[in-house]
Amino acid sequence: MSAQARPPFPAQLTNPAPHHPHWASLQADIEAHLKQTMPLKQPHEVFNPMHHLVFSAPRTTVPALCLAACELVGGHRQEAMPAASALLLNLANAHAHEHLLLSDRARPGDGYGANIELLTGDGIVPFGFELLARSDDPAHEKSERILRVIIEISRAVGSEGLQKALYMENTLEDESDGEDPRHVESMRVVVEKKEGGMHACGAACGAVLGGGSEEEIERLRKFGYYVGMTQGMLQRGLLQGLEDLRNLAFNQLQFFKDRGLDIHIISTFINF
Amino acid sequence: MSAQARPPFPAQLTNPAPHHPHWASLQADIEAHLKQTMPLKQPHEVFNPMHHLVFSAPRTTVPALCLAACELVGGHRQEAMPAASALLLNLANAHAHEHLLLSDRARPGDGYGANIELLTGDGIVPFGFELLARSDDPAHEKSERILRVIIEISRAVGSEGLQKALYMENTLEDESDGEDPRHVESMRVVVEKKEGGMHACGAACGAVLGGGSEEEIERLRKFGYYVGMTQGMLQRGLLQGLEDLRNLAFNQLQFFKDRGLDIHIISTFINF
Repeated sequence: MSAQARPPFPAQLTNPAPHHPHWASLQADIEAHLKQTMPLKQPHEVFNPMHHLVFSAPRTTVPALCLAACELVGGHRQEAMPAASALLLNLANAHAHEHLLLSDRARPGDGYGANIELLTGDGIVPFGFELLARSDDPAHEKSERILRVIIEISRAVGSEGLQKALYMENTLEDESDGEDPRHVESMRVVVEKKEGGMHACGAACGAVLGGGSEEEIERLRKFGYYVGMTQGMLQRGLLQGLEDLRNLAFNQLQFFKDRGLDIHIISTFINF
Repeated sequence: MSAQARPPFPAQLTNPAPHHPHWASLQADIEAHLKQTMPLKQPHEVFNPMHHLVFSAPRTTVPALCLAACELVGGHRQEAMPAASALLLNLANAHAHEHLLLSDRARPGDGYGANIELLTGDGIVPFGFELLARSDDPAHEKSERILRVIIEISRAVGSEGLQKALYMENTLEDESDGEDPRHVESMRVVVEKKEGGMHACGAACGAVLGGGSEEEIERLRKFGYYVGMTQGMLQRGLLQGLEDLRNLAFNQLQFFKDRGLDIHIISTFINF
């Protein structure tokens, strides 16, 4: 289906908040895991804001997609949990620090000061890498996969990934002229690095930890990328080419369907 | 020698800036390595501030101690280079974000805005973990050591380590009454987490990557802790018990000396 011939968007596509029961079940497992690994303990001045920052950040579909990709390639959900947790923690830090960038403008209060947002964010990022490194088995048979996932996540959230998107987005907001074609093109680059890159990383990490083949990993990376692009464009009201993105996402799943795998759960991510 | 009977401090001890030729040689190697792994490339708006932030941060003895510990236990300097680099990047981020905490007070300008300091800092931390994860050998024989070092560094720089020290220090500065004994005690906790904890981590990571035994790793961890405590207390003018700390540091090295190892280079860290 070409972009020109696309039908009107179904209503649920215009709602950026994830709400599907499959997503909700995966997300609940990740949050339960994080609550267990981050108990509310002394010193309260450290752990209370950490909980607040992690569990009040807007939910995304990135960590849940990581688990779904792991299950698709035959892994157990639990194997991808450290990666899903690290992704959630990195995104919560990005959200807290984005909030800090607003400090000179209309910055909504949230009960904690800027210094807490800054330092708590800085604390949860290494905690995510710690969770990953600690998830190695005693026989060290998973070490190679875990190190690969650490590289994947570092790159996706790093200076050429998520941080670059946040910087560009912040700059674009200052100059905003939403009608300018250059603005639209820049916004597309932001979405590629932010929603696209993070979902690609989440899906690839899930496939790596679930023991997927190289082809499965790369198919799921592309699937995640198109899922993230669809979401990010939609959230910014950039509707051109959306149906193509959804088709490209679906095409990646055909590979798994042809091999008799159940793509039902993961395919729901296309419609968020 | 008891704290009561300690002699006047030698002049060089009052200078907190590292300046020893051994330190300078180790530090130069780490900076050369980082310049090679972080080339000045496009996009300039990402890589120029990254270079600035990394190479203009105040130098510490933590990364060099990591290399020296590796060499002491028989490893090659190069084996500890990714850990030394990750430590330097984490400390550079901590410095940039400490600087941000000053933004409402007298904050010296440095050519880049607060948003760049924030996001560039957020970008170099995962880059440090990426360097570590990438340093695994093709046969994956080093994976276990690398994962252990990732856990060590995550904890040292995390919410119960360096970030807690930065938070406490920031709070103490707001309430400062340097004469209050409670202030001195709190400042000691800051030094334990900051200079003490980071040097302990650096020395332990060097020993892990150099293939040290568990006893060597723990001796070097303690050595690093006392070295860091000495430095941190001295820099804050907290002079009580300094000679004891130096003796405790030296005692850890006796173990290596008794086994015929050359402690000359690493012992110079006691006198910074």
